[in-house]
Amino acid sequence: MGLFQCIREKKPLIHCITNYVTVNDCANILLASGASPVMADDTEEVEEITALADALVINIGTLNARTIEAMLLAGKRANELSHPVILDPVGAGASTLRTKTARRLLEAVHFDVIRGNPSELKALVGERASTRGVDAAPTDAVRADNVRAALAFVRGIARETHSIIAMTGAVDIVVSADGTRGASIYNGHPMMAAVTGTGCQLSSLLGAALAAGREDAFTTSVGTVAAMGIAGETAHRLLTPTDGNAAYRSRIIDAVYNMTDAELEEESRYEICRL
Amino acid sequence: MGLFQCIREKKPLIHCITNYVTVNDCANILLASGASPVMADDTEEVEEITALADALVINIGTLNARTIEAMLLAGKRANELSHPVILDPVGAGASTLRTKTARRLLEAVHFDVIRGNPSELKALVGERASTRGVDAAPTDAVRADNVRAALAFVRGIARETHSIIAMTGAVDIVVSADGTRGASIYNGHPMMAAVTGTGCQLSSLLGAALAAGREDAFTTSVGTVAAMGIAGETAHRLLTPTDGNAAYRSRIIDAVYNMTDAELEEESRYEICRL
Amino acid sequence: MGLFQCIREKKPLIHCITNYVTVNDCANILLASGASPVMADDTEEVEEITALADALVINIGTLNARTIEAMLLAGKRANELSHPVILDPVGAGASTLRTKTARRLLEAVHFDVIRGNPSELKALVGERASTRGVDAAPTDAVRADNVRAALAFVRGIARETHSIIAMTGAVDIVVSADGTRGASIYNGHPMMAAVTGTGCQLSSLLGAALAAGREDAFTTSVGTVAAMGIAGETAHRLLTPTDGNAAYRSRIIDAVYNMTDAELEEESRYEICRL
Repeated sequence: MGLFQCIREKKPLIHCITNYVTVNDCANILLASGASPVMADDTEEVEEITALADALVINIGTLNARTIEAMLLAGKRANELSHPVILDPVGAGASTLRTKTARRLLEAVHFDVIRGNPSELKALVGERASTRGVDAAPTDAVRADNVRAALAFVRGIARETHSIIAMTGAVDIVVSADGTRGASIYNGHPMMAAVTGTGCQLSSLLGAALAAGREDAFTTSVGTVAAMGIAGETAHRLLTPTDGNAAYRSRIIDAVYNMTDAELEEESRYEICRL
Repeated sequence: MGLFQCIREKKPLIHCITNYVTVNDCANILLASGASPVMADDTEEVEEITALADALVINIGTLNARTIEAMLLAGKRANELSHPVILDPVGAGASTLRTKTARRLLEAVHFDVIRGNPSELKALVGERASTRGVDAAPTDAVRADNVRAALAFVRGIARETHSIIAMTGAVDIVVSADGTRGASIYNGHPMMAAVTGTGCQLSSLLGAALAAGREDAFTTSVGTVAAMGIAGETAHRLLTPTDGNAAYRSRIIDAVYNMTDAELEEESRYEICRL
Repeated sequence: MGLFQCIREKKPLIHCITNYVTVNDCANILLASGASPVMADDTEEVEEITALADALVINIGTLNARTIEAMLLAGKRANELSHPVILDPVGAGASTLRTKTARRLLEAVHFDVIRGNPSELKALVGERASTRGVDAAPTDAVRADNVRAALAFVRGIARETHSIIAMTGAVDIVVSADGTRGASIYNGHPMMAAVTGTGCQLSSLLGAALAAGREDAFTTSVGTVAAMGIAGETAHRLLTPTDGNAAYRSRIIDAVYNMTDAELEEESRYEICRL
């Protein structure tokens, strides 16, 4: 059964502890996919809310002392209940607080998927990683000519965290939690970088996708990353000359709302390989 | 004088203590109606801000220890000043914190209107209610065939809280604070559930409507609920095949911006009855 | 080199400590201009984030005890690093907390630009100002017939704060930090007041503009204020009869996305004078 059919039939409830910048878009893209959002970040309620939900998405943008504790509590509870848990380490590497928090989360919680850009992911594994040569990894966008190096970099993080890693950029890279399978995904449009939160939105969608209960979390993640890229392509085709990034923001969510599994299959452009 | 003319002439200032998910839409739908928003949630300023404003809307989505105290302080001050106060008990029943907070608010503050869905409203009155048979009430959407049961359920809550109760769903139910009048409202569109915060937006609009100083708060509430439903209908008519829930989100607010009292009167579909 | 070319070539990173109502629009309008946003408000990280960024924008809407300390820490650090710092004193005068916070910020931090409406700006300087006759200043919109009085009012605040002051309204007034140059800007559209946060967005844009490293901060500020007004005009021309303030909100950001320096030069309507 296709990804969107699964989400739309199961209608999973996704608990997001996320930043206040892009939270509305995360809620609306979850609804667009067929899932339902619930946002709650207080330590007194996050465990209960997570227990009610089908997946948990932790996004550390605009974190603070109070919400960090909530992330830890919710993450542990979700692990106990075997709910899918997604981490979006927004800004890891940009401040000590974010890097430390991302690492505390990784120590206390097992994440099914971690989605970030190259520098965020690099910050997660720190110096140990660099001694293994991941310094050679792309710190900016992955492009067609450095996919192999990017796959190796991401495989290292997957093996360290035992999580599916989705590293997004011009080319998106996804590696399975055991580090044996990798994918390079060529969907998307450069203008997506001009809309705040398209990464946060993808992380939310990954929660919906994993909660939909399909068999293979790796291929489900690859499909979800492709779906977000296709939404960016579809949305871009619909822009008029007077439209800008605000119209594009709406059109991306609308593209997810209207996306079918047939469209997803037809328009996906990715390669899967053994690592 | 019609509802929108009243709001647009008085331009009431509406103090919202609300969640960070849908707060921007609440602000813009207030502006669309002719009112002005002011958002403030710190205990050190909410009493002053409420005193400046013409109505207070308390929405417990994304509540936390700090904002709960602010809600209590603002609510009491608004009561002292006889400002209309609206409660949106988002997620009551979903966590102990939300249920308890909603009940603490009900004990400390008198609300002119409480707007929620069936399960949120049920959580407000708790076990006592169930002994009175409200367990028989619809826990999901009200439909044409269970309007009578829904009116009875909502009347029970109105009598318990001495508040106008607006229970929204496929059919919306409004009961007067004394429990003697009820309305079933048939406006709206199912796609409204695919936009986060249409309920929060209606709660904000109820603040604007009650602050506009019309005589009968019950019929004003009924008209406001109908207006939100009509906005959902108008917005849906304007969607193109590539539009989705994000375009719809904007179109709903735009429909309120362009709504006239003539349109409201013409397109309202509700029945009022004595209970 | 034109304003937008400068921003688009330098791509400055703008640290915003801002309210949760309009934060998403602030992020997207920064991206529209060619800058990048980073939002962070925790005391444990704001100094590091500010050090990474090229400018700091402090907006006191929805302030609280935690974020006030973050504003002070970040502001001082930005001063040490000679980064441009912008203040948007949202609601100063509306509550004691906001007025006090704005004044605490003014004492501890030097601001390159302060942008507000007349009553917010008046609250900044308080009684001392009134003894100088600024009580005679417009408390509402500046119009063509009181520009001279408005310039005098704003010059007083500039001299007191040693900041460029941008007072926005029907006519916008900008005065240089030394109080010797003033501008009255006639761009904009009244419907901008029906969109929440157009002022916050302008304050964010001022951060991008000052970070872009052009020579004269005063004329850069005048150009930025004009650009926001032109965006409001362009956006308004594109509205259809069924559009409202939500469509307008998107169109304003889109107009900035598509704005060129040629358009800015051609459509700017302002007068600069010596004071």
